[in-house]
Amino acid sequence: ELREELIQMNPIDIEEILEELDIAIALMLFRMLPKNVAVDVFSYFPVDKQKEIVGCITDKELEYIIDELYFDDMIDLLEEMPANVVKKILLNSNQEERKRINQFLNYPQDSAGSLMTIEYVDLKKEMTVGEALAHIKETGLSKETVYTCYVTDSNRKLEGIVSLRKLVVNEENESIKNIMNRDVIYVNTHDDQETVAALFRKYGFIALPVVDKENRLTGIITVDDIMDVIDKENTEDFQKMAAMSPSEDEYLDTDVFSLAKHRIIWLLFLMISATFTQRIITRFEDVLQSTVLLASFIPMLMDTGGNAGSQSSTLVIRGLALGEVHPKDIGKVVWKEFRISIIVGIVLALVNFLRIYYIEKVNIYIALTVSVTLFFTVIASKVIGGILPIAAKKLKIDPAIMASPLITTIVDALSLTVYFTIASLILHI
Amino acid sequence: ELREELIQMNPIDIEEILEELDIAIALMLFRMLPKNVAVDVFSYFPVDKQKEIVGCITDKELEYIIDELYFDDMIDLLEEMPANVVKKILLNSNQEERKRINQFLNYPQDSAGSLMTIEYVDLKKEMTVGEALAHIKETGLSKETVYTCYVTDSNRKLEGIVSLRKLVVNEENESIKNIMNRDVIYVNTHDDQETVAALFRKYGFIALPVVDKENRLTGIITVDDIMDVIDKENTEDFQKMAAMSPSEDEYLDTDVFSLAKHRIIWLLFLMISATFTQRIITRFEDVLQSTVLLASFIPMLMDTGGNAGSQSSTLVIRGLALGEVHPKDIGKVVWKEFRISIIVGIVLALVNFLRIYYIEKVNIYIALTVSVTLFFTVIASKVIGGILPIAAKKLKIDPAIMASPLITTIVDALSLTVYFTIASLILHI
Ligand SMILES: [Mg+2]
Ligand SMILES: [Mg+2]
Ligand SMILES: [Mg+2]
Ligand SMILES: [Mg+2]
Ligand SMILES: [Mg+2]
Ligand SMILES: [Mg+2]
Ligand SMILES: [Mg+2]
Ligand SMILES: [Mg+2]
Ligand SMILES: [Mg+2]
Ligand SMILES: [Mg+2]
Ligand SMILES: [Mg+2]
Ligand SMILES: [Mg+2]
Ligand SMILES: [Mg+2]
Repeated sequence: ELREELIQMNPIDIEEILEELDIAIALMLFRMLPKNVAVDVFSYFPVDKQKEIVGCITDKELEYIIDELYFDDMIDLLEEMPANVVKKILLNSNQEERKRINQFLNYPQDSAGSLMTIEYVDLKKEMTVGEALAHIKETGLSKETVYTCYVTDSNRKLEGIVSLRKLVVNEENESIKNIMNRDVIYVNTHDDQETVAALFRKYGFIALPVVDKENRLTGIITVDDIMDVIDKENTEDFQKMAAMSPSEDEYLDTDVFSLAKHRIIWLLFLMISATFTQRIITRFEDVLQSTVLLASFIPMLMDTGGNAGSQSSTLVIRGLALGEVHPKDIGKVVWKEFRISIIVGIVLALVNFLRIYYIEKVNIYIALTVSVTLFFTVIASKVIGGILPIAAKKLKIDPAIMASPLITTIVDALSLTVYFTIASLILHI
Repeated sequence: ELREELIQMNPIDIEEILEELDIAIALMLFRMLPKNVAVDVFSYFPVDKQKEIVGCITDKELEYIIDELYFDDMIDLLEEMPANVVKKILLNSNQEERKRINQFLNYPQDSAGSLMTIEYVDLKKEMTVGEALAHIKETGLSKETVYTCYVTDSNRKLEGIVSLRKLVVNEENESIKNIMNRDVIYVNTHDDQETVAALFRKYGFIALPVVDKENRLTGIITVDDIMDVIDKENTEDFQKMAAMSPSEDEYLDTDVFSLAKHRIIWLLFLMISATFTQRIITRFEDVLQSTVLLASFIPMLMDTGGNAGSQSSTLVIRGLALGEVHPKDIGKVVWKEFRISIIVGIVLALVNFLRIYYIEKVNIYIALTVSVTLFFTVIASKVIGGILPIAAKKLKIDPAIMASPLITTIVDALSLTVYFTIASLILHI
């Protein structure tokens, strides 16, 4: 009866239930599922669980799963399996299959090739709508999608696409040639996944064809996999912007040592970079010695500078990621940030002056020093925050690195120099 | 000939070209397009451009666009139009349409209702596959999607869904009743768009049905619109995490004053919160006066604390957004962060000690004070960075606010207190 209840459910919900169970029980239930449902469920398990299951099942069961998985999911699985398992699987395949598996295993990580699958509907332009529909009726269940069909010539060159909607609304005897769309948007096997995601974002596709260097259709990428890519790319940006080495593992599933490892390098680097601020303060020790009160405004100045700068860099990094800002816009960005920083700087400096002079009753010269420094700090940090991500992009470095932590460190040194220079001028020290 | 070239293109590419042109020329080209293409192109213009065009076209042209736009895009347009234009459009519609438009205009922003459209394929369970396909052949071109079809009863209650793939692979005389999927996943009109996005992410849907309180089918949401939602929600998180009030406008298209407005409130708030750090330093003025060198390590201590804390809070905020971390995990998160911070704290404190004692030749007591403070700062900031986003979620505040800027401000005060307390103990001041 449990089995009955399970097979009524969406395979993704079955996976969710099995994932929570003890491996022995999960495996027992897994084996109770109809074979095609089982493969579907298997494809949704996280890699670790897939490995665990592969370790427990028979060679015959594994062979069945390998055969029935969509090719993209099968390749993802092979990438994670130990070498001897992969060898065994390759030995069980015929020469052509082996060649294709090796080809797919070699596509670079994060490339279109690593995302594509081969189960697409292949039509010929000489077919009629009726023939095409008959072809889909026969083969449709084993395809990743049937909603976009691909028209290729005898050399597998992509000539056009036709949607199932178009097939269904047209007459049986209409020729594919007349209704196919020849203005096909496609990517190359070696294009980066961010390029692919940008096309899905822009055109709202359900699937996108991938061609090789000779323009032959080699696979398709579907929108569900692109949603995963978008989530991963965003997570990567969040991690880099918070000074971490990126990792694809879920937070709660990652052990303490690897989490620490991903955090420590940047923290060390930034900590050692603080040598600069330390030197600057040591250099101005006399100024500070004569007016120790100046020290009490250092945190506020530095935090405000960091915050102001990271506002700017965040918007520019995000704009670059979404394709709304381009490296050629650097002039516009600087000019915009400069004007914004004047407005923001004046308001902050004014409020600060009123607060520390009238409320905190600080000496007017000190209040002026702090406020003027604040004004310049805001300008410098916003302009730097606007420039650095674009400069990174131009240098083919990930702009996401030019975020709060790095900008704070740079702006700290700048604002301290300005602070003590103004202080020694105004206070005549 | 230009026209010929244009209409060969994807409407989204046409839009991109027209958007760059002068409004008069764009409008001329726009009017040259076949009417159905023109409406499609119109739907891709950004709101500002849509408004501009509406201001230039005749009432009849506007009426045509309003009639032909998908309902979701039409409602989005009405939401932006001046009241007199909306009134005119409502007067031109019949009573039933008017009622529906008002109903859709009233769905809360960011709700499922505000995302859904009404052009779906509606089937009855008594139909055969052949009848269903004939129905789609007739009406399919005007639907937003035909790939998922919805089976409703006479009261519009949702009974099941059937994919076009299933229709195409089954025999003509098969009954919909026998092939439809009754385990339908749906949302309510008032569900938040993040809930909707989470379902698309999990199940990889192309479309999702939306029902009202009486479980009647009221619309569908398509994956292309959800990709926009995901981008917007991520942008919102990036903005909040960088201490900005969120805005949906593109960076380069937004004027300097509104950009400044979105940034200034948080900067002011955080600047004034720095009163605490200022007070702490003033309180320990004697300690600082006697050993001015202590001041030179303040930036390093505070930045490291801020960076360590924002690493933790970023991972937790992201985990909450993707549904990988839940408020009930707070114990696990704290324990994880505590152990990570011990590892990270020891490494940083050690490296720092070696650097400032052996290389910078700082007095051993000061070197010890700085390193011990660093150790405690890392622990405090990582634990706080782990707790605050979850606490916010529990209090129904957006966790994204508990990011670097706020955590830095809190950790600054903590670490300065620790610093000067240890200093006065170790240095016997
Ligand atoms: Mg798949
Ligand atoms: Mg892959
Ligand atoms: Mg990438
Ligand atoms: Mg998926
Ligand atoms: Mg796939
Ligand atoms: Mg990236
Ligand atoms: Mg649309
Ligand atoms: Mg809407
Ligand atoms: Mg869109
Ligand atoms: Mg839509
Ligand atoms: Mg929201
Ligand atoms: Mg949100
Ligand atoms: Mg800071």
